[in-house]
Amino acid sequence: MCNACSYTIHNYQHHFGWDNSLVPVETVSPGSTIEFRCVDSSAGQLTADSTVKDVETLDFGKINPVNGPIYVEGAEPGDALKITIDSFKPSGFGWTANIPGFGLLADQFTDPALTLWKYDPNTMEPALFGKHGRVPLKPFAGTIGNAPAEPGLHSIVPPRNVGGNLDIRDLSAGTTLYLPVEVAGAMLSVGDTHAAQGDGEVCGTAIESPMDAVMTIDLVKNAQLKMPRFTTSGSVTRHLDAKGYEVTTGVGPDLMTGARDAVMGMVDLLCRSHSLSAVDAYMLVSTCGDLRVSEIVDAPNWIVSFYFPRCVFE
Amino acid sequence: MCNACSYTIHNYQHHFGWDNSLVPVETVSPGSTIEFRCVDSSAGQLTADSTVKDVETLDFGKINPVNGPIYVEGAEPGDALKITIDSFKPSGFGWTANIPGFGLLADQFTDPALTLWKYDPNTMEPALFGKHGRVPLKPFAGTIGNAPAEPGLHSIVPPRNVGGNLDIRDLSAGTTLYLPVEVAGAMLSVGDTHAAQGDGEVCGTAIESPMDAVMTIDLVKNAQLKMPRFTTSGSVTRHLDAKGYEVTTGVGPDLMTGARDAVMGMVDLLCRSHSLSAVDAYMLVSTCGDLRVSEIVDAPNWIVSFYFPRCVFE
Repeated sequence: MCNACSYTIHNYQHHFGWDNSLVPVETVSPGSTIEFRCVDSSAGQLTADSTVKDVETLDFGKINPVNGPIYVEGAEPGDALKITIDSFKPSGFGWTANIPGFGLLADQFTDPALTLWKYDPNTMEPALFGKHGRVPLKPFAGTIGNAPAEPGLHSIVPPRNVGGNLDIRDLSAGTTLYLPVEVAGAMLSVGDTHAAQGDGEVCGTAIESPMDAVMTIDLVKNAQLKMPRFTTSGSVTRHLDAKGYEVTTGVGPDLMTGARDAVMGMVDLLCRSHSLSAVDAYMLVSTCGDLRVSEIVDAPNWIVSFYFPRCVFE
Repeated sequence: MCNACSYTIHNYQHHFGWDNSLVPVETVSPGSTIEFRCVDSSAGQLTADSTVKDVETLDFGKINPVNGPIYVEGAEPGDALKITIDSFKPSGFGWTANIPGFGLLADQFTDPALTLWKYDPNTMEPALFGKHGRVPLKPFAGTIGNAPAEPGLHSIVPPRNVGGNLDIRDLSAGTTLYLPVEVAGAMLSVGDTHAAQGDGEVCGTAIESPMDAVMTIDLVKNAQLKMPRFTTSGSVTRHLDAKGYEVTTGVGPDLMTGARDAVMGMVDLLCRSHSLSAVDAYMLVSTCGDLRVSEIVDAPNWIVSFYFPRCVFE
């Protein structure tokens, strides 16, 4: 329970996909603090008892539910929502899956796979991966978005200029996010909470984890914001960086190919150095490895680098 | 002077472009520590007395000289060089330029521009940008590479699988870099020293700065390494991250467009919030802002984010 919250959006108050004609579950004034009680991105289809069989039979019509929509009084197209991300109350359970057809290396990892996580939601100590891995946690909401202006039902999967499935791992407590408003009331929804994720979310899933999220919603009139932007209150990688990184690179004229090469290089490196299976390495790095663009100007070859935090195994 | 060094490669011992038929300036055994006395990437064409006119008249035949090549005894194709980056002795002078035709937003910044930097090479306190900006310094070598197997003279500008103009800002003291060897002796060269750079080097130049670099060269036989990789001894962003970041995003199906949108968003934001000219903002963010891939799996739209460290102005 959130004492400072004016509203609670319960876990059953969710929808699938974006549609600006949905009836809002709540109408709030700017300045309101709201608790979102979020289910996980499988909408409860995967649990602590699940096996890889459950990944095979996932109902994709029930993927990535978001709590809402919330009508923000006074919000009009051209404004921006200012969303102060206050806190998270994680559940202690999470999952990471390789879902066939989804992920940066979907062509190479064609079989379903599942990792189940259990972590202490009070201490938030790093979550154990196998016998030796320890993944630092930093909870955030993968999906925070306003309804798009375009009528009809739109897939939840791609993010858009109004936000949505941004999967930016720094949308954690202390960050302030600004999202363009395209329809009256903004029609904000929130979900897809993650206990940890690396930049890129390369296997397609993070540590997907049910969680309560508390956010304060303000309005910036006539912000003329084109795309999401955010301000972090402090460092964003200190939970990962104490022991440095192993880094692989992709070199070439296409950023996507470079990203794939860098991640493949890291999967190979971890398989060799830590006797992981390739798909386990792929799922692991999705929860904690960072995809960065080292240079994008030395034509015709760019460098994409993948940073794996050494603290996981050292 | 480097007491621990077995060899010094002086600033006149440089070459332009890669060519595996060049005569080595030195032959060293694995385990040798080498000092590279590097000129800046303009080969001295830009100095503390330069003006923007000197950017207009740059001789591109003399761009990005590298010290070497060094023949490493026993190195053969299929091996890797292990390069331990020991230390840098910066000069205190640097420059950042917008060079027409070069840089991520070359189509928008068509006029030459020049920023001159002066910093204390002993304290390495942040370098002043205008009246209010303070850019944290972290010296590194932008270009570390072996000669490619392909005969002939090759441009210095693009990095390759054997390394070269990598412009990876974490190739700083304490990092160990591994580079594939394609020709007998590896034929290593080093140059293009930078006092600071953000991930991406978005305007095309960093704080270009003459500097001495000390590295220890080892050999890993039959490494079967495809692309450069490296290990950092510790965190890579703590010089930047204490006050958090302002972050802009690019959302869409093309990573290059996303990167451009994110950087344009940041240039606009800094122009508005700090009354910078656009080209000044563009040069500034190239020295300290980081380009990251937040998600690359939520098809068809990826998120590229540009992180500007708030410590520069706060």
